[in-house]
Amino acid sequence: MGSLNDIGVAAGINILSAVGFLLVFAVVRIQPINDRVYFPKWYLKGTRSSPRHIGNVLSKFVNADVSTYLRFLNWMPAALKMPEPELIEHAGLDSAVYVRIYLLGLKIFVPITVLAFSVLVPVNWTSATLGDDEEGLSYDQIDKLSISNLGQGSKRFWVHIGMAYVFTFWTFYVLYHEYKVITTMRLHFLANQNRRPDQFTVLVRNIPADPDETVGEHVEHFFAVNHREHYLSHQVVYNANTLASLVEKKKGLQNWLVYYENQHAKNPEKELIIKTGLWGLWGEKVDALQHYKTTIEELCKQEDEERQKVISDPKAIMPAAFVSFNSQWGAAVCAQTQQTSNPTVWLTEWAPEPRDVYWPNLAIPFVELSVRRLIMAVALFFLTFFFMVPIALVQSVANLDDIERVLPFLKPIIERNGPRSVIQGFLPGIALKIFLIFLPTILMAMSKIEGHVSLSGLERRTASKYFLFIFVNVFLGSVVAGTAFQQLNSFIHQSTNKIPETIGESIPMKATFFITYIMVDGWAGIAAEVLRLKPLIMFHIKNTFLVRTEQDREQAMDPGSLEFGSTEPRIQLYFLLGLVYAVVTPIILPFIIVFFGLAYLVFRHQIINVYNQQYESGAQFWPGVHGRIVTALVISQILLIGLLSTQEAEQSTVALLPLPVLTIWFHYVCKGRFEPAYIKCPLQEAMVKDTLQRANDPMLNLREYLKGAYEHPVFRSGDVYELLAMDEEENPHLVATKRRSRMTTPVDSKFNSSSGTNEGEFSRPRPS
Amino acid sequence: MGSLNDIGVAAGINILSAVGFLLVFAVVRIQPINDRVYFPKWYLKGTRSSPRHIGNVLSKFVNADVSTYLRFLNWMPAALKMPEPELIEHAGLDSAVYVRIYLLGLKIFVPITVLAFSVLVPVNWTSATLGDDEEGLSYDQIDKLSISNLGQGSKRFWVHIGMAYVFTFWTFYVLYHEYKVITTMRLHFLANQNRRPDQFTVLVRNIPADPDETVGEHVEHFFAVNHREHYLSHQVVYNANTLASLVEKKKGLQNWLVYYENQHAKNPEKELIIKTGLWGLWGEKVDALQHYKTTIEELCKQEDEERQKVISDPKAIMPAAFVSFNSQWGAAVCAQTQQTSNPTVWLTEWAPEPRDVYWPNLAIPFVELSVRRLIMAVALFFLTFFFMVPIALVQSVANLDDIERVLPFLKPIIERNGPRSVIQGFLPGIALKIFLIFLPTILMAMSKIEGHVSLSGLERRTASKYFLFIFVNVFLGSVVAGTAFQQLNSFIHQSTNKIPETIGESIPMKATFFITYIMVDGWAGIAAEVLRLKPLIMFHIKNTFLVRTEQDREQAMDPGSLEFGSTEPRIQLYFLLGLVYAVVTPIILPFIIVFFGLAYLVFRHQIINVYNQQYESGAQFWPGVHGRIVTALVISQILLIGLLSTQEAEQSTVALLPLPVLTIWFHYVCKGRFEPAYIKCPLQEAMVKDTLQRANDPMLNLREYLKGAYEHPVFRSGDVYELLAMDEEENPHLVATKRRSRMTTPVDSKFNSSSGTNEGEFSRPRPS
Repeated sequence: MGSLNDIGVAAGINILSAVGFLLVFAVVRIQPINDRVYFPKWYLKGTRSSPRHIGNVLSKFVNADVSTYLRFLNWMPAALKMPEPELIEHAGLDSAVYVRIYLLGLKIFVPITVLAFSVLVPVNWTSATLGDDEEGLSYDQIDKLSISNLGQGSKRFWVHIGMAYVFTFWTFYVLYHEYKVITTMRLHFLANQNRRPDQFTVLVRNIPADPDETVGEHVEHFFAVNHREHYLSHQVVYNANTLASLVEKKKGLQNWLVYYENQHAKNPEKELIIKTGLWGLWGEKVDALQHYKTTIEELCKQEDEERQKVISDPKAIMPAAFVSFNSQWGAAVCAQTQQTSNPTVWLTEWAPEPRDVYWPNLAIPFVELSVRRLIMAVALFFLTFFFMVPIALVQSVANLDDIERVLPFLKPIIERNGPRSVIQGFLPGIALKIFLIFLPTILMAMSKIEGHVSLSGLERRTASKYFLFIFVNVFLGSVVAGTAFQQLNSFIHQSTNKIPETIGESIPMKATFFITYIMVDGWAGIAAEVLRLKPLIMFHIKNTFLVRTEQDREQAMDPGSLEFGSTEPRIQLYFLLGLVYAVVTPIILPFIIVFFGLAYLVFRHQIINVYNQQYESGAQFWPGVHGRIVTALVISQILLIGLLSTQEAEQSTVALLPLPVLTIWFHYVCKGRFEPAYIKCPLQEAMVKDTLQRANDPMLNLREYLKGAYEHPVFRSGDVYELLAMDEEENPHLVATKRRSRMTTPVDSKFNSSSGTNEGEFSRPRPS
Repeated sequence: MGSLNDIGVAAGINILSAVGFLLVFAVVRIQPINDRVYFPKWYLKGTRSSPRHIGNVLSKFVNADVSTYLRFLNWMPAALKMPEPELIEHAGLDSAVYVRIYLLGLKIFVPITVLAFSVLVPVNWTSATLGDDEEGLSYDQIDKLSISNLGQGSKRFWVHIGMAYVFTFWTFYVLYHEYKVITTMRLHFLANQNRRPDQFTVLVRNIPADPDETVGEHVEHFFAVNHREHYLSHQVVYNANTLASLVEKKKGLQNWLVYYENQHAKNPEKELIIKTGLWGLWGEKVDALQHYKTTIEELCKQEDEERQKVISDPKAIMPAAFVSFNSQWGAAVCAQTQQTSNPTVWLTEWAPEPRDVYWPNLAIPFVELSVRRLIMAVALFFLTFFFMVPIALVQSVANLDDIERVLPFLKPIIERNGPRSVIQGFLPGIALKIFLIFLPTILMAMSKIEGHVSLSGLERRTASKYFLFIFVNVFLGSVVAGTAFQQLNSFIHQSTNKIPETIGESIPMKATFFITYIMVDGWAGIAAEVLRLKPLIMFHIKNTFLVRTEQDREQAMDPGSLEFGSTEPRIQLYFLLGLVYAVVTPIILPFIIVFFGLAYLVFRHQIINVYNQQYESGAQFWPGVHGRIVTALVISQILLIGLLSTQEAEQSTVALLPLPVLTIWFHYVCKGRFEPAYIKCPLQEAMVKDTLQRANDPMLNLREYLKGAYEHPVFRSGDVYELLAMDEEENPHLVATKRRSRMTTPVDSKFNSSSGTNEGEFSRPRPS
């Protein structure tokens, strides 16, 4: 495996590319033309508008102010400047807590690193077992700093065992404290929230069919009886998936129409001819403008028909409903209790925010749900374990010595120092990275099949699937498959159950690989993140071809979001690596700290200036984050036990056995202490909020306020303008004629009582 | 291992002892003098009274009616005659469902046996691999009927795999159906119950300390605010453990006083002198009557002081309370919801029945509770796994061939046919049995330390601990340790992780052992159960020395109860054995069926005539029973996979892999479908009962009804007589001067609205 020299080259490449990305970013972001790519959040908040209307033509596109170039790195302190309460108000609790994961990494690993470098590294270095005897095995300088440098059965292992305890307890302390802080933040956030429909609403699923009543009547009767004093109203759920796809299709066609209209405006003489067949490659030739206009008209008609059909057809009503209560207390009670003796019908849970609802999954019956989950569990197993084959192949490529042995004719190329270091330092990381890009989409699709009803729930489920995948394929796959190629014969016939020992034994040898991986994925990857290459290109394409008005430009912005499901498990890999290597090869720790620091900086900048979350779950993901770090801790302990049991230090392995037991116990203590705050709604808090709100706003017509809040989004689109006008007097800071973007920030949420009732308040279109 | 001959002898011994027990029982039970030992339940119900007052002196003690001796076995059909609804009313749902576990065993195993004997046994028998070649291994006829008779890699294994699927699906069907039936029974039972205090009451624990308010005021304020429309009253919990021990001590001394008074009455001249020291062996000599009278008087004073102290001292109030609501709906809501943002305080759960409360555990704080559970989990681990050493020693004794090898001088004794068969057939079972007698008490103590608050919960927890113990020590211990002694060298250095294979391989060899175990524990043990030797002896001792009046005699009765915690896991062992051996050695199945049939008969008789449950949990234990059978099923499947993978039938093991996955999935489906009915109280049902009760009894003063219901039992004892007299007019069927036994049946529960307010209604003693 790689030597210090290889790592040096890899570090050089990665530091250069990271610095390169950051430099490009520093220059690109201050160009006015890119303003909407790098500061979309402020546009959405309405506090920033296009800089184009000031200065001359050139200054609309290029920043000519030299002084700004000199301060090109000032985004970094700026990102840190915003205090946390303001950050929560600006970007929402989800985002603010998300960046705290990186901070948590720093809190855990900085003290561990200091301790490891002052205790473990000297102990390892002075052992000097390796290096003196060259038995054909390839050890390098990195190994001399690692636990491998201790001889078999050395007494010095007790130092490592002691440190394992210290590190574990420190991690406990930080995790517990962080869980506490974040729970407090969540409760504080929920308590300070303004009135929102989801606080009064419960999602009811699996409503049993009734021969005599419609779903709506059945719901009304059931809740009027069983929640007599609290039931207010309900909203049935329509199966509007066809309608939604029609609306989506129309939107795409409208984009093309705009494009051709723009072309026509620029060059009125030129006839715009397109072919109607597949991808415009063949088929009948028609005039583009005419074609799109007629197609859109047809679609509009279809859409109207479908809309009428959905509203009037009783079969389009799904056995699910959003039931609203006249107090948060009533809703909290209904969400937490069982309604009937059959626990598979009348299932109640807190309604997600209206924008967080994943509509297609609302109508899955109980038995189908369990079958789906079984199938997805089996599918996840196969995806996780049979994806390893290609990874193993790629990993093996990374070991040039093996390639040389197998393909001797490549020797001249490989022996040259330049390519050798490049390949060895860069390839393994990049190969893994490419594999991982395609994965979140598949996993998200699997979560959707599993039938979760909110986008936030889908993301959380995807995250736990992805973590499993990363653990098995990136971590175990790299450790075992790489080693397997080296020790093929001695390995393949080994008992499959000795895995902890085998992995533990291979762990120190893979330190170099993971260091390069951290540099590629962690350093350069994060620096690339801040540059936002894809949104930058997409924005300019759209800007050139589609944008005619300021509103269009707003539509062309793609602020993106954090994508918790795919980013969080990748952070978890760093926690896992840090915890596993803290005792074994502490040299890896500074690389991880640099990653956490850089990522904290970048993501804090991104959530302030760029990302716009689709929903606000109030940090509901934290129990998952906490659970995965605890899992990583248990894994690190088991692997350490496995490693030590191969070092003729059996008596010391016994000393480590209490660690996983304590860790699992710690998990249950934290779970009992904090998790309910993320699942249930305490009645005391609900009562306090009810009392406060009644005192503040005694005349509020809650029924009117909640009406239409949980309308399927496709029913809303047509009515936005008129309703905005209607609500105008209640929305002093809203311009009635301006269609505000739907991608509002959490604070500026559509259902925010501070702005009274605004565009969320669409009355449901009734059949005329 | 034992041959068919050994089994024959063992069967003979056990059948003889079983028949012997049954014959003795048949004779003893019809003697009038034993009437209260064998029919205590009917005495407690008040439908049977002492037969002594009719006929001559002899007939008071001995049954001289010859005809009854001829019909001595008629208790068997009588036990089956009572229809189930009547049984539920007579003995409570817990007992009625408990005997259904045996019925479930019959339902699962009778069809499996028929199928196994018509398909698997012929397939095994006709293979004839064993027996032809004698390679020094000792096979016997039993093995020829088992899977061992198939050769390595035989195609016939596919038959066994197919049968494994059939058996699994049949078990699924029966389990699912049974879960459904019992859930329906439970809901029906709860719906038809009369009004009871626990329906309106919630147990609140971990009430946070308040500097300005007492616990009582704090509770009152909290619930008056947060359950404004539903809160009715509360009852704080006193730490009356000292008082309870004083009361207990007084009771013991009173027994001695009665004993000496009786002695004195019989022989007034004789002076009754006792010594006051330890166990009456030394110390000052005093007059017994005088001594006990003064001691009891002193104790009464102490008791009164302690009683006053407990009531007046605020420190004696524990941070727990029973909070009552004005409707079942209100109580159901409070029990199922979280009260505050800190989930470790104000913990609410359904109050157990007053007689089911385990008082000492009501005041354990949250953190202490988690520490206790951790310690108990570790303790259980050590108890379970280090108890194996003695078991292994005893097991090894059972293998006489080994003993002969080790101790050749015993050869002449062992070689004789008689002792050999006796030892081989009888010893292993009896040795295990003795080990197991002491265990439930230890496990119950561990459950108490864990801090469960109801007796029923303690029994359920004990059952799951005991099942783990039985599985590891009786099942695995017998399979592995026995084999370990035979194959010591080849075994001890084997990788510890190949356990499934090793156990699977040993399974067929241990069939004989388990057959004898079933006969000793199952057949003879159950027959001994019906004889009730210990209560019989104890009753006659008490009857001779303590009984003066009819009431005393009632006190001397010990009806006992089912003791779910120690009996249920033992049934589970039979499920485990049946499922494991169904495919491997079907010859064991008829023995299990005989056990289930006999036990069903005996326990049905016992719950009708003898046992008097201490509490009624409404079959809350069923999810545990179901879960353990599913666990046994998974274990049987894994062991079958292990067994087949050693038979060079690897491709067929792959075919078995879906089975455990399906079983675990089945478990989750059942859990989701049925388990909430055992944990939560559906609001619809609560609302229906509220409405009905309001209609039936609109004038009921619920506050008066609930007052004192959750008084600590020691506060009640003194006031029984006066209060009974007070309530007399409301209790037409109660004789005011007769102190009714506290050990009432569930139907005749103290808090039964059909009998209005009776002796449960003690007003709490207030400090004067």
